[in-house]
Amino acid sequence: MRTNSSTAEDLLIELDRNRTRAEPLHRQVAASIRESVRAGRLRHGASLPPTRTLAAGLGVSRGVVVEAYQQLVAEGYLTSRAGGYTQVALEPGGARVAAAAPAAGPGTQGVAPAVDFGYGHTDVSTFPRAAWLRSVRTVFAATPDDRFAYLDGRGVPELHQALADYLNRVRGTSADPRHTVICSGFGQGVSLLIQVLAARGARRLAVEDPSPDDDARPLAAAAGMDVVGIPVGPDGILVGELEKADADAVVLTPSHQWPTGGVLSAAARARVIRWAKRRGALVIEDDYDAEYRYDRAPVGAIQGLAPGHVVYCGTASKTLVPGLRLGWMLVPPHLVDDVAQAKLLADRGSAVIDQLTFADFLARGEFDRHLRRMRPVYRRRRDALLAALDARLPELTPTGVAAGQHVVAWLPPDLDEAAVVAAAARRGVALRGVARYRLDPAGPGGLIFGYATLSERAITGGIARLSRAIGDVRAS
Amino acid sequence: MRTNSSTAEDLLIELDRNRTRAEPLHRQVAASIRESVRAGRLRHGASLPPTRTLAAGLGVSRGVVVEAYQQLVAEGYLTSRAGGYTQVALEPGGARVAAAAPAAGPGTQGVAPAVDFGYGHTDVSTFPRAAWLRSVRTVFAATPDDRFAYLDGRGVPELHQALADYLNRVRGTSADPRHTVICSGFGQGVSLLIQVLAARGARRLAVEDPSPDDDARPLAAAAGMDVVGIPVGPDGILVGELEKADADAVVLTPSHQWPTGGVLSAAARARVIRWAKRRGALVIEDDYDAEYRYDRAPVGAIQGLAPGHVVYCGTASKTLVPGLRLGWMLVPPHLVDDVAQAKLLADRGSAVIDQLTFADFLARGEFDRHLRRMRPVYRRRRDALLAALDARLPELTPTGVAAGQHVVAWLPPDLDEAAVVAAAARRGVALRGVARYRLDPAGPGGLIFGYATLSERAITGGIARLSRAIGDVRAS
Repeated sequence: MRTNSSTAEDLLIELDRNRTRAEPLHRQVAASIRESVRAGRLRHGASLPPTRTLAAGLGVSRGVVVEAYQQLVAEGYLTSRAGGYTQVALEPGGARVAAAAPAAGPGTQGVAPAVDFGYGHTDVSTFPRAAWLRSVRTVFAATPDDRFAYLDGRGVPELHQALADYLNRVRGTSADPRHTVICSGFGQGVSLLIQVLAARGARRLAVEDPSPDDDARPLAAAAGMDVVGIPVGPDGILVGELEKADADAVVLTPSHQWPTGGVLSAAARARVIRWAKRRGALVIEDDYDAEYRYDRAPVGAIQGLAPGHVVYCGTASKTLVPGLRLGWMLVPPHLVDDVAQAKLLADRGSAVIDQLTFADFLARGEFDRHLRRMRPVYRRRRDALLAALDARLPELTPTGVAAGQHVVAWLPPDLDEAAVVAAAARRGVALRGVARYRLDPAGPGGLIFGYATLSERAITGGIARLSRAIGDVRAS
Repeated sequence: MRTNSSTAEDLLIELDRNRTRAEPLHRQVAASIRESVRAGRLRHGASLPPTRTLAAGLGVSRGVVVEAYQQLVAEGYLTSRAGGYTQVALEPGGARVAAAAPAAGPGTQGVAPAVDFGYGHTDVSTFPRAAWLRSVRTVFAATPDDRFAYLDGRGVPELHQALADYLNRVRGTSADPRHTVICSGFGQGVSLLIQVLAARGARRLAVEDPSPDDDARPLAAAAGMDVVGIPVGPDGILVGELEKADADAVVLTPSHQWPTGGVLSAAARARVIRWAKRRGALVIEDDYDAEYRYDRAPVGAIQGLAPGHVVYCGTASKTLVPGLRLGWMLVPPHLVDDVAQAKLLADRGSAVIDQLTFADFLARGEFDRHLRRMRPVYRRRRDALLAALDARLPELTPTGVAAGQHVVAWLPPDLDEAAVVAAAARRGVALRGVARYRLDPAGPGGLIFGYATLSERAITGGIARLSRAIGDVRAS
């Protein structure tokens, strides 16, 4: 591995301890390191000195350095590594490597935000490297050679079986290994489904309103289909509106509507299934984050109710790391050959070693273990967010808080969403409003808070900044 | 890993040693095992007894069992595993897992061919598992967390650098790491390029005639472009015909024309580049197998002559294994952002761990080592093929023999290609003719011999069968 292994022994940090109105020391340390990264003096991959070493060198308490590092990790300048050391995370020049996250926070032009509530980041530092490596080793010891050849478009049989076992147990699906297709994540999965549907004459795709603007919607439009938005209430999509929409398929997030967080009721689920059966329509279930549920038992997947009418889509991007590029679909039998064929044409199948490794990882129970470990971490971040919102911004109304890695908070009618987002950016807080995800522009203003990668301290600090930003808006 | 670990201790093999005209013992052993696999008594993944054990049990010399196993490995029924043991390679029911190879041999309906000269198979048993695993371990020890997040559409910077170093050294490219895009192989790469070209108004794609029928041609047609075939001579594409074709881009295999094997001359290369510059056209260079060159030094990539007008495409599918799903493109600067964006939309990037691992594998020199190890293996297989053709079928004219993993042999005018292919199938030999890859149906008949996965014995046996098949055609 070529990584830049230069260390930052020669880190230049000047502290101002004399002036009574000086910035706190940890902020001065953080500012100095941030400036070195921005100026390229500290390059991507460079290791920082251990906190103890730097603190001794500066003549400050170790807590000062720890706090500075934590802030810069939260801001994305540094990453915390196994073994306790810290590295520079930015590319030279300051461009974020992760700039292309599906719905990343917008950031302010040119300046990295202090706190980034952008959705779509996953806490990649928690990836269980050792357990994954054990599974890779098992794969190389046990896999027949022919698994490394071209496969059919569905993927590796071992993974079909391991996923079916897992999903049937944990998500209440009715998964048949033979009808499982491995893909690179939801984005590719829905692209393949739309190709197949369009080729079979589908003309109209219903989506939730609001919903993500970077997958099903542009893909369906590019395939020549009409896209129709179905309004969403507190309990997810309004099925009565869906029934009127003359659609051939619908994309749903029934377990945790994205972004508003509603959970589709049992009655509404049954009604969606009746609609699909009556029309011969397809339900595309995007089960993007249901593994992270905090206050009550997870809601089962809708696919389990009608496996002949629902495609279940899951992904490792939120539960493990996006870099795996692994997703999976449970496809109704009459569509599975077409979907597998589309996958072959797109890229001749997903990477085989990763599929085999994930199969072993699932079969060993490592995936369950990872989720058990991460659930309290994300829950504490969510709790910190809700507590800070409650303390600093009680006029906002959080929703969809029981699951996932983000929360939407509705704004009171007198606060303009765009003005709040812009003011927040000026205060160093990156976040997005709900408006950009709406098809019908009418609807209340709301803010989307992704909290998966932020420390509790960064969350609290971010909400304090947001509170000042909202003060700016009210004062203007 | 769940694999079927049943062994074949109870293998029923009846030998006929008495009759003077009995089949040789190794053929009887092979036939018996083949029949057990076909009938499902030996299931996929089952281990066979060690040759010594089985030989002792049958009261035959070990060489008899070794030869039987080798034949069945060559035929695809068994796979040879590291550590010297042997497993059943077929899926229950006899369907080949690798049925979807891009240009796999057709096989005969229902019966696995005895010898399969289908192109597109790679000898997956040679994958250097231990070296790859070492690189995976290095990656997990050394990679910063943020590499596992969403990346931009170009892929992992470490791999860009390692590929640029390798390609500039070995393929004579002019690679800039910043203009390198990682994809899932040539199929996806050309799909992305065609999307970008179509969006920029390209209307007409030139391809070699003959050329593969499963990537650029259907993809361009699906994108609404005209596809025009440019005839190929002994030295590759006829540039004079290209100049008349009014095309916006051309897909070329200049180092080893697929399938006919011609190498584009230096003068023709310069003329292609002049054509591209004059028209503002794009050359898509498919460098699918040039690493395997036997009788003279490799011919450098055409991309090195004009990096602003050529996209260089390479893949690990032929050099390592298809299951990696790794390919790479060197893209002219003015197109790289569009191509990266198309990659993001298609699947949000290729699997990261594999990219990082391949980067380390390249940087350690393991890729060079693997190629050095494989070159004489493939060369011996090619030599066996040429020797067998010369001995048994001197009326065929082999061509394009200096490189790669396949040879085309032209048929004399009195032999009908389709009749020979059909007769070969009846004699247990799977191969394809050149005709199916032609856009203009006129042209001499020829047979495509993929030899990458066949033992020298299987090759010789296959040509003997083919010779009998051609005898059948002449007699009918």
